[in-house]
Amino acid sequence: MKKVAVLGSTGSIGTQTLDVVRANDDLEVVGLAAGSNVEMLEKQIREFHPRLVAVWKEEAARDLAVRVQDLDVKIVSQMGGLIELARMEESDILVTAIVGMIGIRPTMEAILAGKDIALANKETLVTAGHLIMPLAKQFGVQILPVDSEHSAIFQALHGEKREQIHKLLITASGGPFRGKKTADLEKVTLEDTLKHPNWVMGQKITVDSATLVNKGLEVMEARWLFDVDLDHIQVVVQPQSIIHSMVEFEDGAVMAQLGTPDMRLPIQYALCYPDRRFLKGDRLDFHMLKQITFEEPDRKTFKGLPMAVEAARAGGSMPTVFNAANELAVRKFLQKKISFLDIYEIIGQSMSRHTAVKDPDLDQILEIEKETYRWIESRW
Amino acid sequence: MKKVAVLGSTGSIGTQTLDVVRANDDLEVVGLAAGSNVEMLEKQIREFHPRLVAVWKEEAARDLAVRVQDLDVKIVSQMGGLIELARMEESDILVTAIVGMIGIRPTMEAILAGKDIALANKETLVTAGHLIMPLAKQFGVQILPVDSEHSAIFQALHGEKREQIHKLLITASGGPFRGKKTADLEKVTLEDTLKHPNWVMGQKITVDSATLVNKGLEVMEARWLFDVDLDHIQVVVQPQSIIHSMVEFEDGAVMAQLGTPDMRLPIQYALCYPDRRFLKGDRLDFHMLKQITFEEPDRKTFKGLPMAVEAARAGGSMPTVFNAANELAVRKFLQKKISFLDIYEIIGQSMSRHTAVKDPDLDQILEIEKETYRWIESRW
Repeated sequence: MKKVAVLGSTGSIGTQTLDVVRANDDLEVVGLAAGSNVEMLEKQIREFHPRLVAVWKEEAARDLAVRVQDLDVKIVSQMGGLIELARMEESDILVTAIVGMIGIRPTMEAILAGKDIALANKETLVTAGHLIMPLAKQFGVQILPVDSEHSAIFQALHGEKREQIHKLLITASGGPFRGKKTADLEKVTLEDTLKHPNWVMGQKITVDSATLVNKGLEVMEARWLFDVDLDHIQVVVQPQSIIHSMVEFEDGAVMAQLGTPDMRLPIQYALCYPDRRFLKGDRLDFHMLKQITFEEPDRKTFKGLPMAVEAARAGGSMPTVFNAANELAVRKFLQKKISFLDIYEIIGQSMSRHTAVKDPDLDQILEIEKETYRWIESRW
Repeated sequence: MKKVAVLGSTGSIGTQTLDVVRANDDLEVVGLAAGSNVEMLEKQIREFHPRLVAVWKEEAARDLAVRVQDLDVKIVSQMGGLIELARMEESDILVTAIVGMIGIRPTMEAILAGKDIALANKETLVTAGHLIMPLAKQFGVQILPVDSEHSAIFQALHGEKREQIHKLLITASGGPFRGKKTADLEKVTLEDTLKHPNWVMGQKITVDSATLVNKGLEVMEARWLFDVDLDHIQVVVQPQSIIHSMVEFEDGAVMAQLGTPDMRLPIQYALCYPDRRFLKGDRLDFHMLKQITFEEPDRKTFKGLPMAVEAARAGGSMPTVFNAANELAVRKFLQKKISFLDIYEIIGQSMSRHTAVKDPDLDQILEIEKETYRWIESRW
């Protein structure tokens, strides 16, 4: 029986994680954590009987405690609560499905407590990869990617030797604006942006997919996750999203993972690794799908990708600034306060004014994030 | 140092095997065998210094012995010679790159002597898979596929559990006549047939690729090699020959190996397994290749595939009849004695008149082959 704690159980990845647990008898939920959605949390508690539940907002935690007072479950809150959940003795693996910088500290605490990590929180490796990866190595902890692209690479690498990688090929759908030029992007609306061609995802990630910031973040993560330098990570636009990503090895062989767009596959792969289990759902039918096409990403129009690579090359705290600037810019775009192209403007200006701090610790990272927010708020 | 014996060193796979040995310091040729090309054999002996060389034709063996009398190499001939080579004490692995039924007995002898097999001889598994695979298991010998499709599957399976395979997806170029109908095939010439769109290969295999017999033989081989039943082996036409084959696992993940059409890759993979080594040559460039397309094979027109599956389902000696009938029919087609469609006719009639013998031993298999030849010769 593998015991699973889920950080961010009420979001898209969190609920799909619970679907996977539901379908596998040898997985058991021992802990849950979420921001404030107590109604959904209550349902999850009644179904999965976790021993410990953390709620970020204190008031929501108190509300939840009342709702489930008939059950034998401990409710905790705030960062202390998340850390208690991350380190809980009963768990074997922590799914970090929470969004934002808030996920980093619990992830580090889980590693210190020897828990494997099913990593879905992007910020963890983007901003703190230099802290996380050595820590995981030191504590003999596995970092198992949940993102479909990284999972595809992880699957392609299974059984292979890391030193025999020639390059990683991260595929990208190209987003809803593929083929458009900068002049076209001046006029695009929030509604246009939220129409992702292949995946149904949260709003933030859908915008990131349209700007190609998402792909940039994935390049940053891949670098840490697979210990491959930036020159050996290539982004290939593959609009049908059939090939989830690929690895080219030294001998020229390219190993690829293909599949339907179903996040339960990488989630289950991470939870059951290295086992594969039957998964109910649509399968690829090659006679139906007709074709897979490839394009070079348009780096001139979709600056999210080259800006991310620039931030990764600068290193240190620069990826934190890139990520924080994008996060706040997207929030403003979702609130219709800025235009689509302003997202690039905000990221670009935030990076220009920042001098990268080498090897920042977590407190510095969190401070630089806040500082980036403050500066942006003062200008936009 | 891995010591390699090559059965069929002067053919296409044989010479490419020597290219791979040339490029890898830890591979050494200890034995060579060929039919009668003594000129090329002499060059190979002078370059690779094998201890033992087998020549199928006795007279050619005598000629070769004179040519290399200044060297410390033993020359043997006929089946006894091939067997001596297959079992030679100094070798670790036998590459069976010889064409035809002649390859089966030496392969079995090599297995009995505990040698791993880099398998390029199609007839071995097609006609004697029921003998070879249990024998390999009993003697703890690895059967490493050299064919690009089987190597792709073998690579996709590396590190995975065989019982978690859902199905194998063998890709096919579709050959030069893809899209044509039976009426069109009535008029095709030998010259039309020998124009393979993607791979440069021998004439026999190029014709087999046009009839889809080749794909049928690969399905038969895959069945034995990976212990997957025929209902879980699917052929997908992929005209660009970029995806060399795929495996769908229980969870719906499809793992594929992609690459340029270069046989040195599967040869090297078999010889260095599970290591990958740098291989000089063209690499896939996804931004250049634009697209990969998929089609269902046209089983009505290209009967080689359904006939092969029918033979495999009948089992026992039927695949031997299928293979022998095809071999002789292709020979006659290459001699311009019969038309393209006669190949199907000959295979079909040969199978119709044969009652499958269950679990034939090697002598029975060889006798049934001869008997099939005699019957065809008496009619065409």
